[in-house]
Amino acid sequence: MTGHAPSAGPGPVGADREPASATTETLLALAAQVAAALGPPARTLATAESCTGGLVGHVLTEVAGSSAWYEGGAVVYSDAVKRRVAGVPATLLEAHGAVSAEVADALARGIRERLGTDLGLSVTGIAGPSGATPTKPVGLVYVAVADATGCVVERHVWDGDRSANKRASAAAALRLLLARVA
Amino acid sequence: MTGHAPSAGPGPVGADREPASATTETLLALAAQVAAALGPPARTLATAESCTGGLVGHVLTEVAGSSAWYEGGAVVYSDAVKRRVAGVPATLLEAHGAVSAEVADALARGIRERLGTDLGLSVTGIAGPSGATPTKPVGLVYVAVADATGCVVERHVWDGDRSANKRASAAAALRLLLARVA
Repeated sequence: MTGHAPSAGPGPVGADREPASATTETLLALAAQVAAALGPPARTLATAESCTGGLVGHVLTEVAGSSAWYEGGAVVYSDAVKRRVAGVPATLLEAHGAVSAEVADALARGIRERLGTDLGLSVTGIAGPSGATPTKPVGLVYVAVADATGCVVERHVWDGDRSANKRASAAAALRLLLARVA
Repeated sequence: MTGHAPSAGPGPVGADREPASATTETLLALAAQVAAALGPPARTLATAESCTGGLVGHVLTEVAGSSAWYEGGAVVYSDAVKRRVAGVPATLLEAHGAVSAEVADALARGIRERLGTDLGLSVTGIAGPSGATPTKPVGLVYVAVADATGCVVERHVWDGDRSANKRASAAAALRLLLARVA
């Protein structure tokens, strides 16, 4: 697990593969911690999820009363939705690819600005089994959290199957959010 | 379960409460059926989810290769996001409330138009435990599917807790989609 500036781009591939061990129970516990950490008075949150496909929003909205702090967001599965709903520049997608620190940063900042929330959270990655490229393996994911002071991006490479990699990515995003708002 | 035109509005309350019995396995099986029903050649789909919070997108993206037909969409948890991302008119939200056949219809049509997909799916409801009004009980949900020929809306009232009502709503939305594309 490495936090780094968006300009750093992906690091060496395969050197830091992590176990994709987060369970649904892990995610629900993290969502409850997020709810407690955000208020009261509640700081508001928006999400832009690519490879997790809505899993982060789902677990956040398992918490009763989440409408007090969760505004909603976007499932930015295609590049077109990344551009149209979260405002990611096409040039950024072309230069770095959808699975990059730069696009994770732009998604978190973009959804926060578009929905007018205190915080923006994003996930973009390759859940698998297909989608790998010579430089981007299955399991590669970037998670990001933006607030008024900037944006922090984190890179992971998970070792699981599609479903496990989605859960691990959602857990990493929620942990990054908790670290940011603590 | 009653299909009806958006202009019909909510029917009598409490008369048609249904068991919220859909399991995660049910949802995953429905997602696989959706994938098979949409192609090839794939018809494309966008989602606008309120009370399910991203659960529909999550189960659709559990299917490997879903990026071929699932464009993404929005988690339209707040009214502001329903307006900004799915283009629901503020007047419609004021006149009928967010949990209404009219808003379900506008969400499904709106997300389809905004994202340029063949199909749009929406869910709006009251998962509980709070959020009920004198005329809208916990468990009330509207699901809708829009295509080039129009939009079909369905009303349900579930008897479960928050989590079960979310799963039942997601299952109803996927079944409506399957019926529409069969």
